[in-house]
Amino acid sequence: MDLSGIFPALTTPYANDGSVSLPDLKYNIQRYNGTDLAGYVVLGSTGESALLRQAEMDGILVTVKESAGKEKKLIAGTGAESTSETIERTKRAAEIGYHAALVKTPHYYKPAYKPEVLIAHYRQVADESPIPVLLYSVPQFTGIALESPEVVALSEHPNIIGIKDSSGNVQRVAEMIAGVPAAFQVLVGAAATIYPSLIIGARGCILALACALPEKCVALFELVRKGHHEKARELQAVLVRASKAIVSETGIAGLKHVMDLRGYRGGLPRLPLQPLNEEQRKRISEMLASLEPATARA
Amino acid sequence: MDLSGIFPALTTPYANDGSVSLPDLKYNIQRYNGTDLAGYVVLGSTGESALLRQAEMDGILVTVKESAGKEKKLIAGTGAESTSETIERTKRAAEIGYHAALVKTPHYYKPAYKPEVLIAHYRQVADESPIPVLLYSVPQFTGIALESPEVVALSEHPNIIGIKDSSGNVQRVAEMIAGVPAAFQVLVGAAATIYPSLIIGARGCILALACALPEKCVALFELVRKGHHEKARELQAVLVRASKAIVSETGIAGLKHVMDLRGYRGGLPRLPLQPLNEEQRKRISEMLASLEPATARA
Amino acid sequence: MDLSGIFPALTTPYANDGSVSLPDLKYNIQRYNGTDLAGYVVLGSTGESALLRQAEMDGILVTVKESAGKEKKLIAGTGAESTSETIERTKRAAEIGYHAALVKTPHYYKPAYKPEVLIAHYRQVADESPIPVLLYSVPQFTGIALESPEVVALSEHPNIIGIKDSSGNVQRVAEMIAGVPAAFQVLVGAAATIYPSLIIGARGCILALACALPEKCVALFELVRKGHHEKARELQAVLVRASKAIVSETGIAGLKHVMDLRGYRGGLPRLPLQPLNEEQRKRISEMLASLEPATARA
Amino acid sequence: MDLSGIFPALTTPYANDGSVSLPDLKYNIQRYNGTDLAGYVVLGSTGESALLRQAEMDGILVTVKESAGKEKKLIAGTGAESTSETIERTKRAAEIGYHAALVKTPHYYKPAYKPEVLIAHYRQVADESPIPVLLYSVPQFTGIALESPEVVALSEHPNIIGIKDSSGNVQRVAEMIAGVPAAFQVLVGAAATIYPSLIIGARGCILALACALPEKCVALFELVRKGHHEKARELQAVLVRASKAIVSETGIAGLKHVMDLRGYRGGLPRLPLQPLNEEQRKRISEMLASLEPATARA
Repeated sequence: MDLSGIFPALTTPYANDGSVSLPDLKYNIQRYNGTDLAGYVVLGSTGESALLRQAEMDGILVTVKESAGKEKKLIAGTGAESTSETIERTKRAAEIGYHAALVKTPHYYKPAYKPEVLIAHYRQVADESPIPVLLYSVPQFTGIALESPEVVALSEHPNIIGIKDSSGNVQRVAEMIAGVPAAFQVLVGAAATIYPSLIIGARGCILALACALPEKCVALFELVRKGHHEKARELQAVLVRASKAIVSETGIAGLKHVMDLRGYRGGLPRLPLQPLNEEQRKRISEMLASLEPATARA
Repeated sequence: MDLSGIFPALTTPYANDGSVSLPDLKYNIQRYNGTDLAGYVVLGSTGESALLRQAEMDGILVTVKESAGKEKKLIAGTGAESTSETIERTKRAAEIGYHAALVKTPHYYKPAYKPEVLIAHYRQVADESPIPVLLYSVPQFTGIALESPEVVALSEHPNIIGIKDSSGNVQRVAEMIAGVPAAFQVLVGAAATIYPSLIIGARGCILALACALPEKCVALFELVRKGHHEKARELQAVLVRASKAIVSETGIAGLKHVMDLRGYRGGLPRLPLQPLNEEQRKRISEMLASLEPATARA
Repeated sequence: MDLSGIFPALTTPYANDGSVSLPDLKYNIQRYNGTDLAGYVVLGSTGESALLRQAEMDGILVTVKESAGKEKKLIAGTGAESTSETIERTKRAAEIGYHAALVKTPHYYKPAYKPEVLIAHYRQVADESPIPVLLYSVPQFTGIALESPEVVALSEHPNIIGIKDSSGNVQRVAEMIAGVPAAFQVLVGAAATIYPSLIIGARGCILALACALPEKCVALFELVRKGHHEKARELQAVLVRASKAIVSETGIAGLKHVMDLRGYRGGLPRLPLQPLNEEQRKRISEMLASLEPATARA
Repeated sequence: MDLSGIFPALTTPYANDGSVSLPDLKYNIQRYNGTDLAGYVVLGSTGESALLRQAEMDGILVTVKESAGKEKKLIAGTGAESTSETIERTKRAAEIGYHAALVKTPHYYKPAYKPEVLIAHYRQVADESPIPVLLYSVPQFTGIALESPEVVALSEHPNIIGIKDSSGNVQRVAEMIAGVPAAFQVLVGAAATIYPSLIIGARGCILALACALPEKCVALFELVRKGHHEKARELQAVLVRASKAIVSETGIAGLKHVMDLRGYRGGLPRLPLQPLNEEQRKRISEMLASLEPATARA
C-alpha cells in the first residue's frame, strides 16, 4: 500500500447540542472527494479523538467509509492506552473497511514506557491487526517520542509499514529515514515542512491544515513530485504562514474556524478546548485574505 | 467532609483471561475494611484507569461501594479528557454513592491547556457535580502541573474542597498551602513524604503503597497526629525504602507483586504495562523481608 | 566536618559602576557574624557566580574568609564546566582557607553527561581536592539532576561528604537519604522545606533566604532540633510565604531588595538579570510587613 | 555581510598535556583554506568554548584570524552569561578582526530569562558591538530556545543580522523565516538538514560535521544552489548517515576521531567529555568506510 500524497487529519464537527454531527462530516467528505487528496485519516489528534466516546468513534468511522470516494485510502486512528483495546479498535476499523491503522504511542504511564515496552506493544498490535499498521509519534501531545532505534526495530515487522512523525523535527525524520528499509514509509504531520520533508525522502503528509486548504497542500505535493522547485518554494512559504497562524497559534479551534470561512463544516471544538475569541478570529481572517493572491498562483 | 487520614489508591485485579476480577477486588476491600484506612480511592492512576473500559469502571465503582465498610469515605477518579465526559462520570459516581470525585487534569492537547482553560474546565465540572470535587495534579503521568495560582483561584469554588498533588515536590505543596483557605484540603500522593507533608499542613495522603502496606501507612499517620516524632521519623524511613523499591522503581507491577506476597489479590498489570522479571521479584522480596523487624515496631 | 545548621548562599553586592563591592560584602558578613548561622556558602548560584569573572571570584573568596567569624564554616562554590578548572578552583579555595567545596554538575554538553560521566567527573575532582567535596544538584538552573544511583555511588568516596539538593523535591531527598551511608550529609536548598527536610534526615540547609532573614531561618532550625514542633510549624509557614514571594517569584533581584529593606547591602543584580519593577517592590514590601508579627514570635 | 555557504564550527585541538594546541589549530585552518568553506566559526559549542579559559579563547581567536585565508568570513562565539562580559568578548573579537559575533543565549538563571529579558540582553549587546551580531539558539545544550516572537522583535535591530538555530526543527525555522525581514539571515546547525533548510530559505549552515567532511558539506550547498536536486538528495542522504553516526551519537569526541581519520588534528576532548571507547571507534570507522563510494560521487 502506497501512502504517497496528502491526507487530511479530519476534524470532527459537532451539532448545536454538542453531539457529533455525522451529516456535517459527510458534507465535508463529499467536498474533499472532489480534490486530489490521497485519502483520509480519521480519529487522529486533530479529530479530537481523545475527547470522543467509543460509540461516537464508531459512527465517525462508518460515516467516512460510506462517504469516501472509492479511490481514497482510509486510515483509522486506533491507538488506545491499553494494548488489548488498541487491537480491538484496529480490528473494528478493518471490519468497517479501513486500509491501515494509525497507532499513537500509549503515554499515560510514562516512567514505565521504556523503549522495549513500546516495541512489545507495537509488535503485539501488528501481530493481531488484519490491516497494516502505521506508528504515530506526536510528542507535543503525548510527551513520548519514538526515536530512531525503536522505529528501526519495528520497521522489520512485516505488518508495520510506516510511521507518522509529527515532531516537526526534520533532523529526526532524516535520521529515521536513513535507518529504515526503503519500503518503510515515513509520513510527516506539519504543513510547514511538506516540501523539506518530501525532498529528504518522506512519502507523504497527514495534515490538519489539509482540512481547510486541501487544494494548496495537494498542489505543493504535486509541485515537489514534478520537480518544480521554484514554485514549490513559493507555495511552501504561503503554507508556512498559514500553518503558523492557524495550527501552531490557534490549534483545532482555529483550524475549524478557517474551515467555516472556506465553506466546510468546521464549527467549535469540544470542551475543554475553547473557541476562538474575537481578536483571534479577526487575525485569522486577515491572514486568510493575505493568502489569496498566492492562492491564485497555486 | 474531612479527608484526614490515609487512602489507598486501589489497584485493579484481573482474572486469568485479562478481564477485571470483581471478586478479587471485593476480597481486597474486605481485608482493608479491617484496617484504619480512612477510605478508598477508586479509579486513580494506580487503578490503571487509563487502561479500563467504561463498563469495567462502572463495575469497579459499584463493587467497591458495596464492599466498603460503612465508615469509609469513598472517592472516585472521574477525570476524563473531555469536560462533558468528566461531568457524566462524576454524576455516575455520585449516583452510586461516592462522597467525592478526584478529577485529574485533562492533558492530551497540552499546548491548548493554558491555566485559564484548566480553570474553566474545573469550574464547569464543579458547578455540575453533585458531590465535592478534588483537583488532581500528577505531572509525571500527564505532563501538566497545577501550579499555585490556578489552585488558589479554584480553591474559592464552594464545591472544590481540595487537591491531590502527586509531584513529590514538598516545596510546591508548602507554597500551595500558604495560598489557599484553611478549609481547602491538600492531600499528597507519595508514601515517601507522608511525615514531611503532614507536618507542613497536608491533610491526608492517597497512596499506592497503602494497597500493600496499609497498616504501616496508617501507623505513620497516627504517630504524626499524636506528635510522636521520633517514632514517626523511624517509620517514615522504613516507608521511604519500601516506596522507593516498590513504587518508584517497579511501579504498578511491583506494587501488585508485593500485594501478592502480603496476601492480597495483586496479580499482573494490564498490557502495555509489563510484569516484573525474575530479578525484580527477587529484589522486592529481599526488600520486603528487610522491613519485617521495623514492621514489628510499627 | 559537621554541616548541621543554616548556611546563607551569599549574594554578591555591586558598586554603582557595576564592579563587585567587596566593602559591602564585608559589611554583610560582619552583620551575619553576629547571628547563629553555621557558616557561609560563597559563589553559589545565588552569588551570581555564573556572572562573575575569575578575578572577581578570587576577591570574594578572600574577603569572606577574612571577614568571617572564626567559628563559621566556609564553603566555596568551585564547580566549573571543565574538570580541570573545577579542580583548580577547588585548590585555590582550599589555599585561601575554605573548609569544603560545593561542586555543581557540569551541564552544557547535556547529551554527553550520562550518569557515568558525572560520576567520573566528581571522582576526579574529589581525588585531587585538598578539602572535602559536596555535590550540588540544581536542575532548575542546570537541566541536570543527580539521581539516587549516582549519589549513592559517589557517597562511597572518602572525600565526598555530602550533597546540596536544590530541587525542592523532598521525595527525591528522602529516597536519597535512604540509600547513602549515615555519615553522608544531605543539605537542601529551599527555605520552604527546612522543617520537612530536617525531620526526614537532612542535616542542614543552604538558603538564599538566609541572606535576608538569617535569624528566622536559624530559629526554625533550632526549633526543629529541640523538638518544638508546634512552633516549628508556625515559623515554617511564615518562611514558606516569604520564600514564595521573594525567592520563587522574584529571584535574586527580589532577595537583594529585601536585604536592602532589612539593612543589608543588597543592591541590584548584574545584567542580564533585571531589577524589580515598582509593582514588584511594592508587593515585596507588603509581604515583608505582614511577616512582622510572626517575626516577633520567632 | 552575506553569510551564504558552509561554515565549520571549529573544534579545539589539545596537546598531550591538555593545553590548547595552537599549532594543530593552525594546521587545520591551513587545510580548510584550500576548500570552499565560506569562513570559520570559532569558539562555538563544538569548539568546547564552555570548557576553555579566557586566555585560551584569546589565543584561539588570534590564531584563526592569522591563519585564515583572506576571503574567509570570520565569526567568533562571544556569548557569556553576563551581558557585560558578552560585550567585552565581542569587542575583543572585533579588535582582532572578526567580522561577526555569534551570541548564544544566557541560560543559567532559566526562571529569570523571560523573553523580554533575552530581548533586552541582545539589544544591549548589539548596541555596543562594533561588528554585526548573530543570535544563537541551541536548546539541546542551554535549555533555552529563541522562539519566533523574540527573533522577529530582534530582527528589527540594525546590528543583528541573523540567527543560528541548532534545534534541528525545520518547522520552527520555517515559521521564523516567515516572520523576519528578507535581509535577516537564518543559518542552521545540523548537517542532516542542509538541503531541506536551504530550500525553505535558510542562508547557510554552521556545522560541526564540516570540520571532518568540509568538501562534502560544501558540495551539497553547491548542488542545492545550482538546483541539482537529484544529486542533492543523494548527497544529503550520505550526510544524514554521517551526521547521525558522528555528531548525534558520539558528539565532539566522535567528530574529533573522524577528523583524525581524515588527516586533520582532532585529538581528544577535554574532561568531563570522555574519549570514545574501542567499540565506538570501530563503528565510526565502518561508517566512514561505507561513505567512500558516495564520496567519490560528490
